[in-house]
Amino acid sequence: MNFKENVNLLKIKLDKASKIGIISHIKPDGDNLGSLFSLGTVLKRQYGDKIDILKSDNIPDKYNFLSNYNKAIEPNKDTNYDVVIVLDCGDEKRLGKYEHVLNGAVVVNIDHHISNKSFGDINFVYSDASSTGEIVYKILKQMNIKIDQEIATCIYVAISTDTGSFKYDNTTKETHEIAGKLLDLGIDLNNITKRVYQSIKLNDALYFIRTLKNIEFFYDYRLAIVCSSNVNGYNNQDTEGIVEYARDIDTVEVACFIKEIEENKIKVSLRSKSYVDVAKIAEKFDGGGHVRAAGFTLCNTIDCVKDKIILEIEKYLG
Amino acid sequence: MNFKENVNLLKIKLDKASKIGIISHIKPDGDNLGSLFSLGTVLKRQYGDKIDILKSDNIPDKYNFLSNYNKAIEPNKDTNYDVVIVLDCGDEKRLGKYEHVLNGAVVVNIDHHISNKSFGDINFVYSDASSTGEIVYKILKQMNIKIDQEIATCIYVAISTDTGSFKYDNTTKETHEIAGKLLDLGIDLNNITKRVYQSIKLNDALYFIRTLKNIEFFYDYRLAIVCSSNVNGYNNQDTEGIVEYARDIDTVEVACFIKEIEENKIKVSLRSKSYVDVAKIAEKFDGGGHVRAAGFTLCNTIDCVKDKIILEIEKYLG
Repeated sequence: MNFKENVNLLKIKLDKASKIGIISHIKPDGDNLGSLFSLGTVLKRQYGDKIDILKSDNIPDKYNFLSNYNKAIEPNKDTNYDVVIVLDCGDEKRLGKYEHVLNGAVVVNIDHHISNKSFGDINFVYSDASSTGEIVYKILKQMNIKIDQEIATCIYVAISTDTGSFKYDNTTKETHEIAGKLLDLGIDLNNITKRVYQSIKLNDALYFIRTLKNIEFFYDYRLAIVCSSNVNGYNNQDTEGIVEYARDIDTVEVACFIKEIEENKIKVSLRSKSYVDVAKIAEKFDGGGHVRAAGFTLCNTIDCVKDKIILEIEKYLG
Repeated sequence: MNFKENVNLLKIKLDKASKIGIISHIKPDGDNLGSLFSLGTVLKRQYGDKIDILKSDNIPDKYNFLSNYNKAIEPNKDTNYDVVIVLDCGDEKRLGKYEHVLNGAVVVNIDHHISNKSFGDINFVYSDASSTGEIVYKILKQMNIKIDQEIATCIYVAISTDTGSFKYDNTTKETHEIAGKLLDLGIDLNNITKRVYQSIKLNDALYFIRTLKNIEFFYDYRLAIVCSSNVNGYNNQDTEGIVEYARDIDTVEVACFIKEIEENKIKVSLRSKSYVDVAKIAEKFDGGGHVRAAGFTLCNTIDCVKDKIILEIEKYLG
């Protein structure tokens, strides 16, 4: 079925349904949430209480300026949905403990991950799209739905966050064209930038500063390692920026963040810049990921894990 | 004179000239350099040795992937130019000690700063353009010059850096449209991102990490102050990221970086997020700047300067 036929089928299924769910994944990011609230808001306007905007996990409060943020609820065991729209999920497991909402429903799968096996009954899976938000934009256009400032803001957040603000090479000419059109609808770019990119939580910042000072370098500064032991008590922090900061140092090819998440349970995040395939390194330790971003978990002490990694990475640095 | 007439006049002047200079400003940024090397490369191809690509200051080596980077020379006192193209300069003072190159030349002033008083003989001053690079793009289009990958890369760097990768609100629909077209010319976005955004110098990173751990907060975490004394010996570092990191903490309205640049000579950088006009604060201390970014220099001790600032800023935090 082509895109247009798929959109028509979706409309028919939505019109016929008594109860519709649209759901985010665990650890939702900007693309997931921008897609959820753009399409969710459109459907809420059209179908009212027939629509539940569902969350599989907590939603970071920095996204609280997105339309209908407060309306997102956790799925209820007693509610059966005729249609469930799943956004930005490579597979159903990304719904975590709420995978059951798909039972008995027509599943609409909107995603851009290359690994997506088209698990839905209706699939909008386009791995050449920059983001799920870009696909949502095209669906709304095909449905002839007017995109206003509120919807445009959500879609913009989706596209901007998943392209690293247009810096990653999933960005295409079309991505920029869509972003330009969204800007022209009067979205408040200053506010979006402030909310999404300039709002580091105080505790996260303090954790970032305290942790990063432990940075160590190996192999002529090509490997950077940052360790964080459980004892410092910052366990629920957003640690995302730390390994990226280490990677962005010009001498560094591989950056590694080693974090004790429980006593002797160590989570390792790996990033590379140009040539080392960190997914292969992660696989050695029963982890996985992508060529430039991967990870694994080991039960051991920080020092032992660090020694193993230093030895392993040497083989790849050449 | 309208844009088209201006471009025609520029062509006539360039064709007639025996010697042409195109010049960057002091402390050149990505917009300045992307503009210099895009237009400079086009003119070199067309006019060969008639063209000198001139630099008023050192060019950061992270831009060494831009076309003709190695050809940029400092102006020579004995060379007289018939035409000099000045890029991204609010006024002639931005040429520093090389302002004299303008003497006797037809001055072509290409800029987007609102403060630009059209000091040139031919002026392309458009304050609604995101960047000087965007104006250069339009001039090349009007001249019917084919933009290839090499030129597109330079223009993309200009636009991307001056818009904070499309995050600042100088970004328009047209900015995105141009960026999309440049991408479509086959520029290597991955490489640009790595070179421009992911290449922190090792010493700058170490300085950032060591300095930021001195962060202090005042007035319910709304004011953040980071001090750096001369004694730690990192004096020629790029300190740009420090005050921005402090500002980006969600509780912070004003961030202040106090740096001892010589014994008892203190440079202060101020940033604000939403409502405090830091230019006013800087003016109190005989400095200046913009509403959200300003600075000044005082001869005093770090501690005295810090105390003065804390007292002054209280008035503005409300």
